Amino acid sequence: MNDLEIRRRHTASHIMTAAVKMMHPNANLGVGPWTDRGFYQDFDFGEDKISDHDFKKIEKKMRWIVNKNFAIKKHTVSKAEALKIFGKDPYKNELIEEIAARSEDITFHNFEDESGKVFYHDLCAGPHLKSTGEIGVFKLTRLAGAYWRGDEKRPMLTRIYGVAFENEEKLQEYEKMLEEAAKRDHRKLGAQLDLFCFSEKVGPGLPLFTPKGTFIKEALQKKVEDICRKYGFEKVHTPHFAKIELYETSGHAQKFSEELFGVSGHYKTNYCVKPVQCPHHTQIYASRPRSYRDLPLRYMESEKQYRDEKPGQIGGLNRVIAITVEDGHTFCRPDQIETECKNLVRIIRKFYDSLGLWRNHWVSFSVRDSKTPEKYIGTEEGWQKAESILEKICKDEKLDAKRMEGEAALYGPKIDFMFKDALGNERQLATVQLDFATPERFKLEYIDEKGEKVTPVMIHRAILGSYERFLALLIEHFAGAFPLWLAPVQAHVLPVNEAHEKYCQELVKKIKESGGRAKYYDSSETLGNRIRKSQSQKVPYSIIIGDDEIEKDILTIRKYGEKKDEKIKIEELLKELNDSKI
Amino acid sequence: MNDLEIRRRHTASHIMTAAVKMMHPNANLGVGPWTDRGFYQDFDFGEDKISDHDFKKIEKKMRWIVNKNFAIKKHTVSKAEALKIFGKDPYKNELIEEIAARSEDITFHNFEDESGKVFYHDLCAGPHLKSTGEIGVFKLTRLAGAYWRGDEKRPMLTRIYGVAFENEEKLQEYEKMLEEAAKRDHRKLGAQLDLFCFSEKVGPGLPLFTPKGTFIKEALQKKVEDICRKYGFEKVHTPHFAKIELYETSGHAQKFSEELFGVSGHYKTNYCVKPVQCPHHTQIYASRPRSYRDLPLRYMESEKQYRDEKPGQIGGLNRVIAITVEDGHTFCRPDQIETECKNLVRIIRKFYDSLGLWRNHWVSFSVRDSKTPEKYIGTEEGWQKAESILEKICKDEKLDAKRMEGEAALYGPKIDFMFKDALGNERQLATVQLDFATPERFKLEYIDEKGEKVTPVMIHRAILGSYERFLALLIEHFAGAFPLWLAPVQAHVLPVNEAHEKYCQELVKKIKESGGRAKYYDSSETLGNRIRKSQSQKVPYSIIIGDDEIEKDILTIRKYGEKKDEKIKIEELLKELNDSKI
Repeated sequence: MNDLEIRRRHTASHIMTAAVKMMHPNANLGVGPWTDRGFYQDFDFGEDKISDHDFKKIEKKMRWIVNKNFAIKKHTVSKAEALKIFGKDPYKNELIEEIAARSEDITFHNFEDESGKVFYHDLCAGPHLKSTGEIGVFKLTRLAGAYWRGDEKRPMLTRIYGVAFENEEKLQEYEKMLEEAAKRDHRKLGAQLDLFCFSEKVGPGLPLFTPKGTFIKEALQKKVEDICRKYGFEKVHTPHFAKIELYETSGHAQKFSEELFGVSGHYKTNYCVKPVQCPHHTQIYASRPRSYRDLPLRYMESEKQYRDEKPGQIGGLNRVIAITVEDGHTFCRPDQIETECKNLVRIIRKFYDSLGLWRNHWVSFSVRDSKTPEKYIGTEEGWQKAESILEKICKDEKLDAKRMEGEAALYGPKIDFMFKDALGNERQLATVQLDFATPERFKLEYIDEKGEKVTPVMIHRAILGSYERFLALLIEHFAGAFPLWLAPVQAHVLPVNEAHEKYCQELVKKIKESGGRAKYYDSSETLGNRIRKSQSQKVPYSIIIGDDEIEKDILTIRKYGEKKDEKIKIEELLKELNDSKI
Repeated sequence: MNDLEIRRRHTASHIMTAAVKMMHPNANLGVGPWTDRGFYQDFDFGEDKISDHDFKKIEKKMRWIVNKNFAIKKHTVSKAEALKIFGKDPYKNELIEEIAARSEDITFHNFEDESGKVFYHDLCAGPHLKSTGEIGVFKLTRLAGAYWRGDEKRPMLTRIYGVAFENEEKLQEYEKMLEEAAKRDHRKLGAQLDLFCFSEKVGPGLPLFTPKGTFIKEALQKKVEDICRKYGFEKVHTPHFAKIELYETSGHAQKFSEELFGVSGHYKTNYCVKPVQCPHHTQIYASRPRSYRDLPLRYMESEKQYRDEKPGQIGGLNRVIAITVEDGHTFCRPDQIETECKNLVRIIRKFYDSLGLWRNHWVSFSVRDSKTPEKYIGTEEGWQKAESILEKICKDEKLDAKRMEGEAALYGPKIDFMFKDALGNERQLATVQLDFATPERFKLEYIDEKGEKVTPVMIHRAILGSYERFLALLIEHFAGAFPLWLAPVQAHVLPVNEAHEKYCQELVKKIKESGGRAKYYDSSETLGNRIRKSQSQKVPYSIIIGDDEIEKDILTIRKYGEKKDEKIKIEELLKELNDSKI
């Protein structure tokens, strides 16, 4: 984002806060930053109540502040002075104490009139516009609750969100984008198209995939697995929990204890629900002696993992407790790293290419922070070699990767693939990560040509990541109108009236027998109604059968989103459906 | 089993106990019944140590008792007398007190000499042989630990197992069967063929399926699902835990609390790991309004469920904590029960037929105990109708079912399919169960033709049951030599020497490309060694390629278990492998 827009959002946040303080002088203030989309400010209104019905009034006061065109001036003040300005506001006091403890400058950005008199003070490092009059257009958008410092043990504050733009046209553009986003929202479409559901009795963050959603999940799984199988991956199948010992060895028990679910049984063993697959896969590797001739071994598994997410953060398919991850691990010799990683990059390219998403991405090549090598596990030589192999692959495969210093994992460098979703948000989906640490921790080994015990290298890879997030992304990407190969129902078959029902039922049978996915839609409603409903279900083809079609042995097809019908032969349809098979 | 064999085993148990008491007069005695295979007796040896090295000595004493040909005489005694006979033996005292508390007769079966002098007393209801001389042949087989009354909070006793037969020939027959069983043991073959493994760090009862085991599991799954799909089943996909509330509604929390695992997170919700799929499936049904036109809805899911088994009972794949169940539920109108159940019977028949197991079974038709209708959920009329529908299906489908009074589930009648495993043990695998209670408990409904709310009927069905048990059964059934369609590796390709390696690698590629499963087996070992190893891996085809084969463009194949080679054309092989595709 450019600097001007950052200033605009930041200043808009201050203008809103000043306006709210005019109306609620006793409100205490949490933080108020700019964001990707706009800005917000957290308030503690004490006994006062506020709702989005108050937005109009606040916006009016904001316009008054804008019209006053206050200058925005930066000041550095002493801790005593800062504390005095905020009086008893516990949040600002806490922030001031922390800045002072770090021995940093305490800066204010104040609104001042021509005489230099301060209309409004705020603790803030900036940057801001020069004056409130430069703001352009703004709008308050929504209210939400937010814990002070994101900690659910501390007070719940009221967060007011808003947006600010250069002019009315830009605001309208933004609102149109929001409208489009709402139409594509996977939570809304997921319910409308009956792809997944949640149940009060099962619990939040635990999605249940209905037959249609399950079809899409399995179609994606088949696509990924078919590609991976060609590169030597074999499926394995492991349970969803293990003794906590497994995660103590892998380090997850120590590092991710906040996200680990425990399992309590009637006997003595302490179990954890698996938060990742890697430790289980190491145990299959370790289940028998391995020779250098056996490597590489490539395991893949699409299974659920569970992470104890904060209840307030759970939502839709993007933040769930039950995450179905398409996970894979390669165990190989050091001399096999290059070929294996190159193949992984090719798998990723093939998969995204087949979905038409390959051009819509950028690649991050994450290396150590070379200034602090002590922060990473492994030898200097090992890291240099690993980084140079991945760098070569990025070059050979023409990935045009950005080198990201200090972004490597603790245990090795990695290549991440970032894709843009329908709203332009960036998502890290695919990854290839070298790992020298896990095989050591689990004492994995193989016997090399000389008969000596050697530790293998482990490569973690994700292709589509989690099915939940990927499904959310695809629903929004296609706005629910899935291409033929992914559509759970490819065609609705609609008789014009009762006389055509039998013919239609036979057609459905014929389509199903040839491996297509068709549904019969009986004539109990008007044809117009049925066509509309088929379109609202975003079914690719609505096939309409009347006297004419039966007589001429032809199909009338209304494609999704089209206003005109087409005529095609049954054989053509069957061929088209057959060609769409994964 | 016939009465004589029961008497023989029972008496053998007493003879063994008497012999042990001659050597360890202070040993206290737990129970000592006859079993399906032989007999056992539990002992508390106190400070004495015993091992299977002592079997010879005990058997010698047993033969002495047999040669004495003691008469076995039944006596009914008073509680005081019984307690006196057993002195301080706490186990026998406990049993005597319980018999007395139930006001039952306290009977002894004693060994007495010609003068009527008692050589050995034992508390026992019989039946027994007339004298110890009639015993035939016997053998002590193994030692094990067993908790007194199966309760892990009470003392651990030493259990000695043995067998007894009419003559030496029958004993040898039995030992041969045991040998065969040991060869077929799925735990042994599972490790030898690398189908599954266990890990100390993951925990007992939590099997990890390796690539080969996963292949078999998925092949079975595809076979079941393909058949079910033709009858309208659709896959769904649900998480592995849910709020305890879900199981309180279904009744599992109350009835199976001993087997339920709890899940402990950092927030307030109480979760349980799912012990069955049905409650989750009701929630997909309940996720939207249903009309009579939408029914039947048929959901299937092959997912893991978890049951907290007693650590001492866990073993191999037959008793596991993580059970992968191929589960399915039909929700239908009352008028659809007959067709739906009939189709389920047909699915079961098709599946077992395709495995060659259909003839190897019997069918149990389980109905209420008509004398105690109050023990069941539902109306008299509902039960009568349900039972008559299932009875009709048993007849129409020529199931030759045995009517089992009082064997119905709490919530409805059922048809169970019992199969014999390789050792002749009976296993209940497939089932069709009517359930009127669960839909009521979850308040499921649909709108009928009159616009009124009606509760649907639920039909539970299992086809293969759990993949773990089914895999164990199949491994033992095939003794690990899987038919072509189930074999994870169908062919090993063996070059006679280095000169033939390239040709072999290309052949492997060709087989794989045409969808077969072949593995290259390089020439670093002698050909004879490699053929032996391929056979020990029970790979259906070992393909041997030398000069002659390359020149004549033909394959030399050694089939598993054969001693002679065959010559076939590549095209024939590819066709055969292709025909075996599921």
